[in-house]
Amino acid sequence: MTYCVGLLLNDGMVMLSDTRTNAGLDNIATYRKMFVFEEPGDRVIAIMTAGSLSVTQTAIAQLDEAITDPEATPATSIMLAPSMLRVAELIGKTLADVSSDISAKMDRLSESVGASMIVGGQRKGGDMRMFLIYRQGNFIEATADTPFLQVGEHKYGKPILDRVISPDTSLEEGKKAVLLSMDSTLRSNLSVGMPLDLVVIEKDQLRIAEQRRIEDRDENFREISAAWSEALRESFSKIRL
Amino acid sequence: MTYCVGLLLNDGMVMLSDTRTNAGLDNIATYRKMFVFEEPGDRVIAIMTAGSLSVTQTAIAQLDEAITDPEATPATSIMLAPSMLRVAELIGKTLADVSSDISAKMDRLSESVGASMIVGGQRKGGDMRMFLIYRQGNFIEATADTPFLQVGEHKYGKPILDRVISPDTSLEEGKKAVLLSMDSTLRSNLSVGMPLDLVVIEKDQLRIAEQRRIEDRDENFREISAAWSEALRESFSKIRL
Repeated sequence: MTYCVGLLLNDGMVMLSDTRTNAGLDNIATYRKMFVFEEPGDRVIAIMTAGSLSVTQTAIAQLDEAITDPEATPATSIMLAPSMLRVAELIGKTLADVSSDISAKMDRLSESVGASMIVGGQRKGGDMRMFLIYRQGNFIEATADTPFLQVGEHKYGKPILDRVISPDTSLEEGKKAVLLSMDSTLRSNLSVGMPLDLVVIEKDQLRIAEQRRIEDRDENFREISAAWSEALRESFSKIRL
Repeated sequence: MTYCVGLLLNDGMVMLSDTRTNAGLDNIATYRKMFVFEEPGDRVIAIMTAGSLSVTQTAIAQLDEAITDPEATPATSIMLAPSMLRVAELIGKTLADVSSDISAKMDRLSESVGASMIVGGQRKGGDMRMFLIYRQGNFIEATADTPFLQVGEHKYGKPILDRVISPDTSLEEGKKAVLLSMDSTLRSNLSVGMPLDLVVIEKDQLRIAEQRRIEDRDENFREISAAWSEALRESFSKIRL
């Protein structure tokens, strides 16, 4: 499994993914699920992936290839596409094509594969936008009413987001919220695991403001995780029935 | 959907269920999912149900009928069965029989039905025991390592239980924990709904210590729900990145 979460806030976007991939409980590996595409000053795009690794790796490789292709056009390259909506459509099409290719092979073995992605970004002259793209290539968009998107094991970490995230949440508070949301998920589901990849994009900067890998031994993450546990237990003991 | 949670603590058992039943999002009803069987001084048993209402109602009706049958024996009645293990086996058999009866009819329409139950209780001379019974009739038991059992929509409400429940948690703290666990679930999943049914059984009392329906307008529940939200937000804002 996987857990990826993205926030679309007034001040920018915060995206966080884990890195655990498993084929059964006895075959666990670490793979990056966060991919950044950046042309500073022109556009910045971050993609997080969930689902079948064979699908997501192939889809990302095809997107990459299309960008570096000398014959790239706005219809084929996410770095040339004229809007974030077109970027989402292009990623959706790639994901759907790869999913159906691989599924066709799998059907003979009656297996099934799927993948989904969260893509957030901004291009010069456009708004920041964030989409959740399904395996079929269709997508939904984050809005002021629903300023966060999740893929993978989303339930454990949703209550904290429901309570604290709104469009006017600051980027610092947003980082804290996604880290605590991930912390709850890590505790409850073995198939979600450290290290984590964090990306922050500030509004209208058209570049990555912060990109960081948070390792298992990261002191800061351990501290906020412990502080949150302590705060929850303390809050709990203070409430009177 | 449904959310039911049971705690097996050193001092007793705490069980909480919601009451929402739905067949599609536009057909919602309130049904009791908590059933109490009591012979004060001899034994006390509480059953919570999740899954297909047609299965759970029939199974509970059959268990009831077997109790009042003038020819009831320890092999047929949960009120005569010689141990809680036998009670769990009897409920498991009833659940499996009903599930497979109804599924056989359903298969012709290629539908599928299933149900699961949590049963907690104690008989004179025996220990308190709590079981989660699957539709196939097999079951697992709560232990000191895993002192809580959940059925239905269990993920949203698990992080709080993971953090605060251990066998030496008091019954008061246990009640608070299941109510807050339910509160997180109610906020995140429309198919779980008020009112709630709460049952508390104290160790070796062999009777229900507390049985209460918590209505939507229940002041006390609203207060702890609001206090918890407030405490979470306050704890959140106090944590430094």
